[in-house]
Amino acid sequence: MPNAFRSPATGRMVRAVLFDTFGTVVDWRGGIIAAVTELFRRHGVDVDGVSFADAWRGMYQPSMAPIRDGTRDFVTLDVLHRESLRTLLADRDLSGVFDEHEIDALVHAWHRLPPWPDSVDGLTAVRAHYVVGPLSNGNTALLTDMAKHAGLPWDVILGSDVRKAYKPSPAAYLAPAELLDLVPGEIMLVAAHNDDLRHARSVGLATAFVARPTEHGPNQTTDLTADDDWDVCVTNIVELAQAITPH
Amino acid sequence: MPNAFRSPATGRMVRAVLFDTFGTVVDWRGGIIAAVTELFRRHGVDVDGVSFADAWRGMYQPSMAPIRDGTRDFVTLDVLHRESLRTLLADRDLSGVFDEHEIDALVHAWHRLPPWPDSVDGLTAVRAHYVVGPLSNGNTALLTDMAKHAGLPWDVILGSDVRKAYKPSPAAYLAPAELLDLVPGEIMLVAAHNDDLRHARSVGLATAFVARPTEHGPNQTTDLTADDDWDVCVTNIVELAQAITPH
Repeated sequence: MPNAFRSPATGRMVRAVLFDTFGTVVDWRGGIIAAVTELFRRHGVDVDGVSFADAWRGMYQPSMAPIRDGTRDFVTLDVLHRESLRTLLADRDLSGVFDEHEIDALVHAWHRLPPWPDSVDGLTAVRAHYVVGPLSNGNTALLTDMAKHAGLPWDVILGSDVRKAYKPSPAAYLAPAELLDLVPGEIMLVAAHNDDLRHARSVGLATAFVARPTEHGPNQTTDLTADDDWDVCVTNIVELAQAITPH
Repeated sequence: MPNAFRSPATGRMVRAVLFDTFGTVVDWRGGIIAAVTELFRRHGVDVDGVSFADAWRGMYQPSMAPIRDGTRDFVTLDVLHRESLRTLLADRDLSGVFDEHEIDALVHAWHRLPPWPDSVDGLTAVRAHYVVGPLSNGNTALLTDMAKHAGLPWDVILGSDVRKAYKPSPAAYLAPAELLDLVPGEIMLVAAHNDDLRHARSVGLATAFVARPTEHGPNQTTDLTADDDWDVCVTNIVELAQAITPH
């Protein structure tokens, strides 16, 4: 199982290829819109599922901020998703409309997101030559459920709760190197987000950009293309596999 | 993917089936004997590879003891294997015979152990209905290499270095429950060692005994059969799958 890709930036042969998940491997927006819309329809709630899903995701970065800056102890993304959902339901005068089982199911919709069409084939091809895993802010339980549901063939799943650090904290990017007994330059982060790659590169990881121009819907304006000289730039994960595996 | 097995001991439906690895899933003795014997032969060293392998494994439990009792900070099993090997080589007047690359390769023989003949098929069958993973004293890098080499289809790999605890410390058995967001009784430990199961049960896990009567060679006297009323008792992992999956 020879590896074949040397990162121009780190000078190292890549050994493990780790993926941002939300947006890069799975279509969080499509999955959450579907779950929210179905629940609202069942209850006759006249609230737009699309804007609700976007608002829920909009609380993602702010919800992690107090943990990143040390003013709050680590809690998992499941806990943050639940808190954000309750806030959002209250804001829309929907508190009490759904029972605990329904709230639970909605929080767990983040565990059952659909993969992009190329994800399973692409990961399978990369896996033939590298260790593959997520490098995500998702917790281990979430990522394990996601993998089983979407058929993602990870070798190893180390959620953000393993070292209790959220990206873009350096500890989040460096945890897999410690646990896989690799130096940072032997790990490649694959992401659809230039900022994520910038932080990964700043602590020594190899980088690959996968364009996901509809992650945020048809009118997306951010991350349409690579905005730096990442080690690899592709438009899907099958192309990534072709770019980094021996021919 | 309905689960189907309720543990008589915990009263819980099992959700994750986690496996002791050395001896239960892989044949550490066969693998280490082969690696040691080949190296000794190559160097014309007249030392019996079988007794050397058994002596190396004999240092396994003692090497972890200072970490378990808190008198030494956690180091990985790779580090302990290397220390034990150096001690053993010195005891046999073999210090300096092998170069650093050869020492490295021998330590990494623990990453490339052969599975028992039923392991891959059995794990694949269990995986169809449960989360499967190791619950081993191996570190994450070791277990990841082992899985890729032996084709073990784990869903998730959480090595002893994740929570820095070695079995039979309670923390080692309880770490996967925390990270998989399950209660202990939803996790089943599968092991070929009655003691391992006793410790797992004492902290609330479901238990399954798999007999491996030749783990220690043809004259094995320990763990030939289950010595307590474990939830399941079988002679291989394919039988385990049949015992705990829906018909």
